[in-house]
Amino acid sequence: MPFPPLRFEKDVLKILDQRQLPLHEVWIECRDSRRVHWAIQHMAIRGAPAIGIAGGYGLWLGIRKFRGSRRAFFNKLRQEAAYLKGARPTGVNLRNVIDRIMACIHLLKQNDVEILKKRVLEAAQSLHKEDDLLCRRMGRHGARLFKTGDRVLTHCNAGGLATSGYGTALGVLYAAKSMGKKITVYAAETRPLLQGARLTAWELLQSDIPCTLVCDNAVASLMRAGKIDRVIVGADRIARNGDTANKIGTYSHAVLAKVHNIPFYVAAPRTTFDFTIRSGKGIPIEARDAKEVSEGFGPRITPHGVRIENPAFDVTPHSYISAFITEAGILRPPFQTSFKKLESSLQR
Amino acid sequence: MPFPPLRFEKDVLKILDQRQLPLHEVWIECRDSRRVHWAIQHMAIRGAPAIGIAGGYGLWLGIRKFRGSRRAFFNKLRQEAAYLKGARPTGVNLRNVIDRIMACIHLLKQNDVEILKKRVLEAAQSLHKEDDLLCRRMGRHGARLFKTGDRVLTHCNAGGLATSGYGTALGVLYAAKSMGKKITVYAAETRPLLQGARLTAWELLQSDIPCTLVCDNAVASLMRAGKIDRVIVGADRIARNGDTANKIGTYSHAVLAKVHNIPFYVAAPRTTFDFTIRSGKGIPIEARDAKEVSEGFGPRITPHGVRIENPAFDVTPHSYISAFITEAGILRPPFQTSFKKLESSLQR
Repeated sequence: MPFPPLRFEKDVLKILDQRQLPLHEVWIECRDSRRVHWAIQHMAIRGAPAIGIAGGYGLWLGIRKFRGSRRAFFNKLRQEAAYLKGARPTGVNLRNVIDRIMACIHLLKQNDVEILKKRVLEAAQSLHKEDDLLCRRMGRHGARLFKTGDRVLTHCNAGGLATSGYGTALGVLYAAKSMGKKITVYAAETRPLLQGARLTAWELLQSDIPCTLVCDNAVASLMRAGKIDRVIVGADRIARNGDTANKIGTYSHAVLAKVHNIPFYVAAPRTTFDFTIRSGKGIPIEARDAKEVSEGFGPRITPHGVRIENPAFDVTPHSYISAFITEAGILRPPFQTSFKKLESSLQR
Repeated sequence: MPFPPLRFEKDVLKILDQRQLPLHEVWIECRDSRRVHWAIQHMAIRGAPAIGIAGGYGLWLGIRKFRGSRRAFFNKLRQEAAYLKGARPTGVNLRNVIDRIMACIHLLKQNDVEILKKRVLEAAQSLHKEDDLLCRRMGRHGARLFKTGDRVLTHCNAGGLATSGYGTALGVLYAAKSMGKKITVYAAETRPLLQGARLTAWELLQSDIPCTLVCDNAVASLMRAGKIDRVIVGADRIARNGDTANKIGTYSHAVLAKVHNIPFYVAAPRTTFDFTIRSGKGIPIEARDAKEVSEGFGPRITPHGVRIENPAFDVTPHSYISAFITEAGILRPPFQTSFKKLESSLQR
């Protein structure tokens, strides 16, 4: 795992503060669920899979000191689960992870509270490991879609830092590299928080994959100039029909890719799929603080009093997506059929 | 003229340093052509029409202290003209203004050097006034395309600050407002130099036109959500077939507008048209310093050693443009025919 954004050591969850990358490497120590909630909400940790993993540990940190009856324990557990799930609304992995731990603990409810607490931690650790496995498997499948010479656009950071360490979209590129395929990357900077400029550029430089950084609004002319062969992004939530929520700007790249006849891939593990919703219309889109736009990384640059809209995500309709890269293989349209491969993938 | 970015007073050209707006209002005093060249190159003044006007005064500042023969004067004039025209390559107004002054002075070449110097200044002042006239006329024509309730997207700043004070794209919106039409604007922030966030938002706030600032990459989802009725932008150079160079990101908005069935207008005076080139392929695209991307308005945000591409402009093919708004009226496709209206527009 080249870029793990979190470590669990001696009952402490250590989270790499990604807001300070690439210039400073600062680790935040979380000893309770409140700190984990804060780190997720303030995006010290980000990326739907990584948020999910942090949430799992957060749930354990929330109940580890609990003393009381089994009934009170389950009340507390439910309360912590709801609290943590509320930290960020769009990515579904956080909810999925917590729901899976809850389901597991419910099955074990005949045990003592102390045992149950231990099981919560074991489940969180297991989901942490699972993410690495899913990413590596996804990487192997996805790498087949790429060949030496490909110039690949990516948006935001769907790398090691967004997962347990290996990455979804970037994991595919790491896998391609390990197969000897020489790929070059255009990283879109990804306003307002510049995850492309700060995180993806940083990961790729260290991975020795040639990378060129561009402003988001330069992507269209790169495509028209024939400089981009493929687009690959991660996802925060994928609906049953394939509509995909991901970092704001993804939909823009998807439309432009279609107009310029460039394949557009989404790399995501089963944990990012939400089969409870029919389409992208059911995905809540988080609106974040205007300050991210007006004074993100330096002094204020906007006039006082200006209204700002800052949606953190957009939804790309399934018709713009050439294929999903998952641990169960490459899923192509019609997704209604191909998604069936995923149904059983988490029940190994 | 609500937002004049330059003033000529007592033989000094005063240029508003737009790099410092909206937080600081600093005026740069230019007493020679070198200072004007610097102000254009470093984008203290920007916007193709405003650059043109500054270039005209720059030409005069370059020869005002000249002493010598008429032949030597013309040598000096040509030298200054070439020097100033080289300050920025993409916008054509700078070249157009200087060529028009040169053509005029050539016709008057029987005069003494002192008289010729005076004529250079008169011509520069005349072109300064002309720009205001063209913008206001353009505004009146263009305003017909807008109606109360329209939500209009604009990119970069094609306002007063980009011209003699009234604006091209924003001039149209000012004219619409003065006709009582209630319009609201989405301003795309326009990375890397944030002319939308800093300049357009500032102008519109002062003009009492409701304005919402968004990141460039949020435009696509706004369009999909049905929140944008029209797009209007300025231009830096328009080829004979209608292909239009404008601030990087314009092409992206144009493609997205077409996909979402939203009219896309370009507002530009005759001085922005370059009938010497057949298509956008003939327009040189300026590549600017990577630092604009890596540390534009605060500390460095990118990892050291990352490669950055920073094209300042892109070209929107004519097929994406619904109409040009010019001082000669609204020009619709086929542009080969409608552009004929422009041929004589500067020979009143």
